Amino acid sequence: MSRVAPLSGFPEFLPAGRVVEQRVIAKLAETFELYGFASVNTRSIEPMDQLLRKGETSKEVYVLRRLQAEAESGGDTGFGLHFDLTVPFARYVLENAGKLQFPFRRYQIQPCWRGERPQDGRFREFWQADIDIVDRDELPTHYEVEIPLVVGDALRSLPIPDVRIHVNNRKLSQGFYQGLGLSDPMGAIRAVDKIDKVGPAGVAKLLSEELGAADDQVKACLALAEIATDDESFVDAVRALGVSDPLLDEGLDELATVIATGAEDAPGLLRADMRIARGLDYYTGTVYETFMDGYGRLGSVCSGGRYDNLASDGKNSFPGVGISIGISRILVPLVSEGKLGATRDVPTCVLVALPDTDSRRDCDRIAAKLRSRGVATEVAPAAQKYGKQIKFAERRGIPFVLFPSSGTDGHEIRDIRSGEQSTVDIDSWLPPTTDLRAEIQRTGE
Amino acid sequence: MSRVAPLSGFPEFLPAGRVVEQRVIAKLAETFELYGFASVNTRSIEPMDQLLRKGETSKEVYVLRRLQAEAESGGDTGFGLHFDLTVPFARYVLENAGKLQFPFRRYQIQPCWRGERPQDGRFREFWQADIDIVDRDELPTHYEVEIPLVVGDALRSLPIPDVRIHVNNRKLSQGFYQGLGLSDPMGAIRAVDKIDKVGPAGVAKLLSEELGAADDQVKACLALAEIATDDESFVDAVRALGVSDPLLDEGLDELATVIATGAEDAPGLLRADMRIARGLDYYTGTVYETFMDGYGRLGSVCSGGRYDNLASDGKNSFPGVGISIGISRILVPLVSEGKLGATRDVPTCVLVALPDTDSRRDCDRIAAKLRSRGVATEVAPAAQKYGKQIKFAERRGIPFVLFPSSGTDGHEIRDIRSGEQSTVDIDSWLPPTTDLRAEIQRTGE
Repeated sequence: MSRVAPLSGFPEFLPAGRVVEQRVIAKLAETFELYGFASVNTRSIEPMDQLLRKGETSKEVYVLRRLQAEAESGGDTGFGLHFDLTVPFARYVLENAGKLQFPFRRYQIQPCWRGERPQDGRFREFWQADIDIVDRDELPTHYEVEIPLVVGDALRSLPIPDVRIHVNNRKLSQGFYQGLGLSDPMGAIRAVDKIDKVGPAGVAKLLSEELGAADDQVKACLALAEIATDDESFVDAVRALGVSDPLLDEGLDELATVIATGAEDAPGLLRADMRIARGLDYYTGTVYETFMDGYGRLGSVCSGGRYDNLASDGKNSFPGVGISIGISRILVPLVSEGKLGATRDVPTCVLVALPDTDSRRDCDRIAAKLRSRGVATEVAPAAQKYGKQIKFAERRGIPFVLFPSSGTDGHEIRDIRSGEQSTVDIDSWLPPTTDLRAEIQRTGE
Repeated sequence: MSRVAPLSGFPEFLPAGRVVEQRVIAKLAETFELYGFASVNTRSIEPMDQLLRKGETSKEVYVLRRLQAEAESGGDTGFGLHFDLTVPFARYVLENAGKLQFPFRRYQIQPCWRGERPQDGRFREFWQADIDIVDRDELPTHYEVEIPLVVGDALRSLPIPDVRIHVNNRKLSQGFYQGLGLSDPMGAIRAVDKIDKVGPAGVAKLLSEELGAADDQVKACLALAEIATDDESFVDAVRALGVSDPLLDEGLDELATVIATGAEDAPGLLRADMRIARGLDYYTGTVYETFMDGYGRLGSVCSGGRYDNLASDGKNSFPGVGISIGISRILVPLVSEGKLGATRDVPTCVLVALPDTDSRRDCDRIAAKLRSRGVATEVAPAAQKYGKQIKFAERRGIPFVLFPSSGTDGHEIRDIRSGEQSTVDIDSWLPPTTDLRAEIQRTGE
């Protein structure tokens, strides 16, 4: 194993960063389960034809080839690594429709892969946490209200900068562009979706040159994209643009309900934002993008929406609504900038010092007693001088060192941070709860 | 999404099976952390030259190609999916040696991939749980005793059939073959490793034809492979074969210590077994294979050993000892045969019944109160007749249904298994601890 180097786009954490990732994933899972979402794990690969259904992403897929099949036909397996958790989930629902209970609420926390050039906040291998609710044939709109509130609860329970979920509705955008007389409303949605990259002037150019929009139509589209409010006042602002369409009315109603409920249940979490479009074709109702305070450069850290036609086998359709949280996109910058760390690098709470080599078995028994009460314990690797053994604990952040007594005096435990040392009853001693395990530490703020 | 079919070799669980997998993974992680092992997650891919270092496995690797690079040179990235967690871990240790504290104890629970033909207990994508202890330059032998005891503790805490770890020592085998005058002791180890596949006669043929062993040498090799004891008596049995060699003595001593300690600390867990060889070249000391009662056909469900030369950058070497638990190999058969299931399919403990559509917001507030005390709760999807809402809970195994009161009487909660119903104080009510979350259920025994 000669050459070893980090691979661009494939982030890996040192143990302290991994503690952060572990605790965040556990907290997300806990919150999702409190809302009744069941855990699902899918295989990492999907047939290429499934992966390529959403045209836009085809360039990003890693295709699998079996090494041993090199001679025959390139060895392609016809499979690729999934680039999100939505496509695999839609396939899972169809494959197991007869065995699942609908509406089906699931969460899924797994790595995804994209073969694209890595850039700030974009990786080739990254962890996502998704929640979705799918139903058979019809999906009530109240789930479009619930999903961002669940995600808000989950994200706000994490030690990360504040987040705000920007919400729009496809019916609103599409109805508006229709009512405006644009011939390709979906094309307009895709053009407006580029506003952060190319600016209003760039969008105007796309609308007029590629979609043949007239000047006043372009102006109305840009005016719509500027509307963003924390309450239902966006409805009047949109109406003031003078466009009418039944689909627009439906979209305004639905979005108003989402925003009103959010304002009541989770003040400051949701914002109606007509600029949010989501590039993907399959969204049909509410859409979400999420921005983290001070990390606008990362783009949306958590996106999703309602889809009606993603999972369908011809006979049945399974409309759904869901959001993906970009775990790596959120955590990799926070950890690498030193904003988040761990209280220690190891799970170990107590190091049992080793007085001499022959005492190892006795020390193992002391450790076993502590472990039986849930206290992570290891025995020192060698019978060095106690000073060296204490250093061993210090370097890892292990808070307690136990010095075994050979007599009947009882063992002594030292808190090596304060230096306090006392004789303890090994059958009942417990550390303070906060020292029991490595926890996330907010630093450098 | 038209064609959907399960893929052979890529097992996926339905929600109940996933509960089993989740609980097992959590229990393993908990046990490993009690012994001070830190969690590490590595990226899923490694450079091909790293993956191919262990010649034997080259045929099994999935190579990654970028779809968009099709035109140029086939698009191969030079990377493949890891086929175990040992190779990535060795690379991780070398890459981060300056930032890690040694001895370094880590556990790692991730999927691995092998492009091989799927068969009973062998998959193309499968989860493994590894623990390893690596040190810099030298590794004390007491870790070769500790590792199988940690794994034994972890496996015995799971609701799976009893396991037995069979232990041998490479020094013992190699010393024996050397002392016997065989010119290629490593070749003999590989031949004996095939004994379960080709039988003693097949091994005899390999030894004589490929390694030029004389009849009495073949006989001695087969006699050694037959020795298996639960205590240290294997030492005398090996000595009785009349072979002597300093390396053999060392191996006998080391194995005797492992077995003696195991007999004391974990009776019935370890067995000295001279037939255990492990095919891989890199083992240098104690080696382990594990068999699950009644599932011999799966082969070893948990294997490993000591290695001295796996991670080395020329200047420093990082000897280690570790074991991999085959999570999928153990769980997929137990779940698919119906031996392990879950107490329910969903995390939800309480379903809040919905009296009418307008009450949804009130019901959401009741649910939020229960969630704030850690009770997983969802609100019924629609204001159907209560009988239908109870059915909804029954089909998912949700134990409690809450019927909201509009007045000041307090809400009623029904345990739908017993039919018992009572008025409760929503600000203090808690379900029995055993109902709090979905748990593993042993069934069909």
